[in-house]
Amino acid sequence: MDYNATSPLEPEVIQAISEALQEAWGNPSSSYVAGVKAKAIINHSRESVARMVGCRAEDIIFTSGGTEANNLVLHTAVEHYKTRCRSADAPAAGHPNGGSGRPHIITSNVEHDSVKLVAEHLQMHGEADVTFVPVSKVTGCVEVEDVISAIRPNTCLISIMLANNETGVVMPIQGICQRVKSLNKQRDHLRILLHTDAAQALGKIPVDACELGVDYLTIVGHKFYAPRIGALYVNNPGVKTPLHPMLFGGGQERNFRPGTENTPMIAGLGKAAELVSTNLSHYESHMQSIKLYLEHRLKAVFKEKLHFNSHFPGADILPNTCNVSILGPALQGWRVLSNCRRLLASVGAACHSDSGNRPSHILLSCGIPSEVAANALRLSVGRGTTKADVDAVVEDLRETVQLLEETTGGL
Amino acid sequence: MDYNATSPLEPEVIQAISEALQEAWGNPSSSYVAGVKAKAIINHSRESVARMVGCRAEDIIFTSGGTEANNLVLHTAVEHYKTRCRSADAPAAGHPNGGSGRPHIITSNVEHDSVKLVAEHLQMHGEADVTFVPVSKVTGCVEVEDVISAIRPNTCLISIMLANNETGVVMPIQGICQRVKSLNKQRDHLRILLHTDAAQALGKIPVDACELGVDYLTIVGHKFYAPRIGALYVNNPGVKTPLHPMLFGGGQERNFRPGTENTPMIAGLGKAAELVSTNLSHYESHMQSIKLYLEHRLKAVFKEKLHFNSHFPGADILPNTCNVSILGPALQGWRVLSNCRRLLASVGAACHSDSGNRPSHILLSCGIPSEVAANALRLSVGRGTTKADVDAVVEDLRETVQLLEETTGGL
Repeated sequence: MDYNATSPLEPEVIQAISEALQEAWGNPSSSYVAGVKAKAIINHSRESVARMVGCRAEDIIFTSGGTEANNLVLHTAVEHYKTRCRSADAPAAGHPNGGSGRPHIITSNVEHDSVKLVAEHLQMHGEADVTFVPVSKVTGCVEVEDVISAIRPNTCLISIMLANNETGVVMPIQGICQRVKSLNKQRDHLRILLHTDAAQALGKIPVDACELGVDYLTIVGHKFYAPRIGALYVNNPGVKTPLHPMLFGGGQERNFRPGTENTPMIAGLGKAAELVSTNLSHYESHMQSIKLYLEHRLKAVFKEKLHFNSHFPGADILPNTCNVSILGPALQGWRVLSNCRRLLASVGAACHSDSGNRPSHILLSCGIPSEVAANALRLSVGRGTTKADVDAVVEDLRETVQLLEETTGGL
Repeated sequence: MDYNATSPLEPEVIQAISEALQEAWGNPSSSYVAGVKAKAIINHSRESVARMVGCRAEDIIFTSGGTEANNLVLHTAVEHYKTRCRSADAPAAGHPNGGSGRPHIITSNVEHDSVKLVAEHLQMHGEADVTFVPVSKVTGCVEVEDVISAIRPNTCLISIMLANNETGVVMPIQGICQRVKSLNKQRDHLRILLHTDAAQALGKIPVDACELGVDYLTIVGHKFYAPRIGALYVNNPGVKTPLHPMLFGGGQERNFRPGTENTPMIAGLGKAAELVSTNLSHYESHMQSIKLYLEHRLKAVFKEKLHFNSHFPGADILPNTCNVSILGPALQGWRVLSNCRRLLASVGAACHSDSGNRPSHILLSCGIPSEVAANALRLSVGRGTTKADVDAVVEDLRETVQLLEETTGGL
């Protein structure tokens, strides 16, 4: 029950990768048949990925993963600001807005490290000012008004995740984009670019880049049963929306992201995107019903000892994400998980698994008290999770909790 | 005969990838068994790749490919120089060498675009001074003395490829490193870092990072029958040798290159590296003998019409690379290749395949006259190329040349 960390590959996806490994190993830049075939596979995948997020094929740039896609967006925002400054009329200061001379980026305080640490790095090196808008401790959401209030004359980017990986809270991206777009009409000097990291949302809820109104959207394969590769949606890159490459090389991806294309992984990403486009409502309703059953069973067994860390009034939650704490002095999340015999889950983001046993800063930011957050278990179900799996997990938890309470005597 | 563009995957490599796709899809950062298993595969591959280039496992950083590895080295050199400047004693100017205040990078004029274009970008944006040392028009090689003469007080990086992808010329990296290392002993203020892009050399000739004496060495999987992924050798990264990440995120690869690891591709890279470590001398001698047979047959058929663009006095050439021109006014490389019925080859780097029909700037730089370079065919053989393949290719070329000369009447 750790599908928010990563997912297995669908058999059709493995099949697509295997075929490309065997039969489409040509260099996609070669002009003869082996290259043309590889190129065709890549372009077909580009169309499938585009369809999944409701955009045009030419708006999809393949990257090595979500980390690179997120880094590329923040890099672009800073470079674009510098370019605007260089070309600005303002003769002396050289920056178009009377601001600090540095670009200003707005993000939330619950982002993945591939946004958070980039922003902190830019801030530390004086390359950007950053506002980390705190999520509401009531709803777990960034509030549209809080984001709008944070805007400054030198704001160049707003980057807010579409859904949080720990709480499953879906953020009001469409509302933010609508407000910012009307503000942008009065900001000839510097349009605010809009980015959302959709890593945790894709394959779980409908995601349409145009409806959301974003300029950039991060796509991460291994969260929706695709391989470890990613893509960035950019609304008409280089024309409507700036995109400054981080890498230079052989011209692939129209110079936005050079490097010989990873044809097999791209083929797998495309196939997984097709599956999402075809089956999303089925995946969504299955995961939702399994999660509800899980929550129901947990409540039945642990009663008032159970605290939901993913229930927020008025907030939309991912259909697969259940974050709970079983209250008790010996029941820290890491302790429970390391004593479970069958349950595989996590206490937070996988990439924080070696950060000790401190309570998740994400949960603390959402208003979960420290002693509750310390006991958190992130249970995220997948397409294939069954009620029998749920029963086994709940029984495993029941036994583990009983054991821990007995051996520690409640501490 | 285009194995310098890319290579197929060895069956054992496909097998390793397939097994990892099926059985090691866990997030390598997860602390339970699925994660631990994926992590173990990655570490095993790291050891195999390290063995191939004669270094320690902890000196290998996995990247998305050669383009990223090369970009990372140039990025590091510039960032390292800035860091040195910030920490320098020199109170006013803030740069430690009395130079331009910008770092200086030395490279050659026959590098791959993933070095060349990065250097040009840094130069154009005033972030670095760059010297493109021309290769000798006699030997096709950068001369050690020319590199040493180009060194300035603010030189921070020398990046020269180990072997050229079009001519197959092997560059005197060891000689350069020896000279620079003794110079470095007198350069307390700013050590010159040494990088070689070994993309075309690995799997073809012995490559030992320690013997060469480089600080960084770029490894590109898809040139040695591995998948589209790469690695960077760094001599004790972060301790002996600086490495400034381009990406920020979840802490993978000890923060030098974050992003959830591409376990299956890494597994394939490791398996391909093992094959190279075990079989290199066999691969090398097979390719060498097939290439000699190819050159012999071409000479026998085309006689004095044949010009070798990969024969340089005193230069070592890759065992698999044969670059020839068949002289004649209608026999431009692109024209010959597009009329061949069986031969698949290229006129130069695959990523330049859409750059029109101009003669290769690499060959011109090596002293090949323009009208000869225009007719160049890069024929690069592989592990499985047979004498029968050579016979078929030479016959194909003979027929094509005859046809072109008849239809154009020699122009």
